[in-house]
Amino acid sequence: MTVTPASLTPHQVRQACREDSWTFPSTAGICDGYVQANLVILPSKYAQDFRNLCARNPVPCPLLGETKVGDPTIPARLARDCDIRTDAPLYRVYRGGKLVEEKKDIMSEWTDDSVGFLIGCSFSFEAALIGGGLVPRQIEIGRNVPMYATKVPLAPAGRFGGHMVVSMRPYPPDAIEQVRDLTRPFIATHGEPIAWGAEGAAALGINDPTGQNPDFGDPSEIREGEVPVYWGCGVTPQLSVMDSKLPEIICGHSPGHMLVLDIRDEDVCA
Amino acid sequence: MTVTPASLTPHQVRQACREDSWTFPSTAGICDGYVQANLVILPSKYAQDFRNLCARNPVPCPLLGETKVGDPTIPARLARDCDIRTDAPLYRVYRGGKLVEEKKDIMSEWTDDSVGFLIGCSFSFEAALIGGGLVPRQIEIGRNVPMYATKVPLAPAGRFGGHMVVSMRPYPPDAIEQVRDLTRPFIATHGEPIAWGAEGAAALGINDPTGQNPDFGDPSEIREGEVPVYWGCGVTPQLSVMDSKLPEIICGHSPGHMLVLDIRDEDVCA
Repeated sequence: MTVTPASLTPHQVRQACREDSWTFPSTAGICDGYVQANLVILPSKYAQDFRNLCARNPVPCPLLGETKVGDPTIPARLARDCDIRTDAPLYRVYRGGKLVEEKKDIMSEWTDDSVGFLIGCSFSFEAALIGGGLVPRQIEIGRNVPMYATKVPLAPAGRFGGHMVVSMRPYPPDAIEQVRDLTRPFIATHGEPIAWGAEGAAALGINDPTGQNPDFGDPSEIREGEVPVYWGCGVTPQLSVMDSKLPEIICGHSPGHMLVLDIRDEDVCA
Repeated sequence: MTVTPASLTPHQVRQACREDSWTFPSTAGICDGYVQANLVILPSKYAQDFRNLCARNPVPCPLLGETKVGDPTIPARLARDCDIRTDAPLYRVYRGGKLVEEKKDIMSEWTDDSVGFLIGCSFSFEAALIGGGLVPRQIEIGRNVPMYATKVPLAPAGRFGGHMVVSMRPYPPDAIEQVRDLTRPFIATHGEPIAWGAEGAAALGINDPTGQNPDFGDPSEIREGEVPVYWGCGVTPQLSVMDSKLPEIICGHSPGHMLVLDIRDEDVCA
């Protein structure tokens, strides 16, 4: 049996990250069929506001689970023998809303007062799109997905507010109902698109008809006869936390370097 | 002991509705401390889309519970001995997105294929505002709350989409943090406000600085030194369903004539 990135087990990936022997440029395409999580790590006094932010905005902020205060162990139902401080490939450290460091573990940032949150990611529904023959453009061209800040306000929660971030994948208009049907069941990982086409772009306040000028991620290609299709994006809660400019240290994963869980895509389907 | 509208038990109110002896002009101020529910009754083939609409938009569409298909009994954890067809004071019947009738029961509209949904209402958090000395203006002046259609898109779910509807209560700017704190715990009944002030109104696409021209409900009064404060509103899911122009018969309660449940406001608090 050949070991490929897609056939690694989540535990193998996490162990490699923990032992600092992980060398892949991102977790895209790693551990086929397993859920990957966005991370946000906060002082406990902000935990209830963050929990409320996710509860009030589940489409862009699908909360999969959280650690206990000061305990870096991921709940076993999500991943066994998993330490949130070391088991993702790359972390980012923020202070006052500004990136101060990117590093391979957050052993020295995690405290007895830290709480870690795990948020669903679009890799889960992308597998369903690929399975349906509707390969997302950014996978076809080997790039990161393009993301946009929208003018759609989040339902605020205490300290946290801001606007929804969306990811974009172009499709022909006559494929949109199939795209909606394929992604709808992934209710815990953004689900069906929130908007599409020129009208959808206008409602979100996005003006990039070619897909070449996203706010985050890589430029894409909206080809002739295609329209942009937008999904809620897990960058939303990170951006909301950064926008709140908390004076304390906040950590997250580095974009594209997600924590790979033991649960499978079908486990987060309705 | 004097029986007042506020001291009636929910069961007494429901029995009076069922026996057609209920004569109050609305359920506002009835059964102090008990949760009241918005109703939406649909053919079962739309139930999953409606469930998803609520799951994806919990702030304006807080789903408290639902009936089994064809069984008009409300789940006992919400109300005992409660028939969704008869126990609200007044119902509305829609077809093709248009109101066709207002009536005191929906015995002839309910079928073996019907599903009833119960959605939280702002009466719960208004009790907390009153308790905090921040009496909502529409209660002070004896009117229905003013409501506005916004330009904020809902996260669509299958057949259902549209925009968020909000309710508005004016407060002085220096009371807003207390207003937010008082209503935040009511996570299952709209929770804290989604926007406030001139900036909030602009983000929602509302242009009514005096509060005299709402889209639904009654005109209010935004007095000098006050700003509008906006909450997600339970009219949202009804309007979303109406906008989808389903050809079948759809029922709801008549605005202000809610189903009174056995659970108390504190039961829907975080």
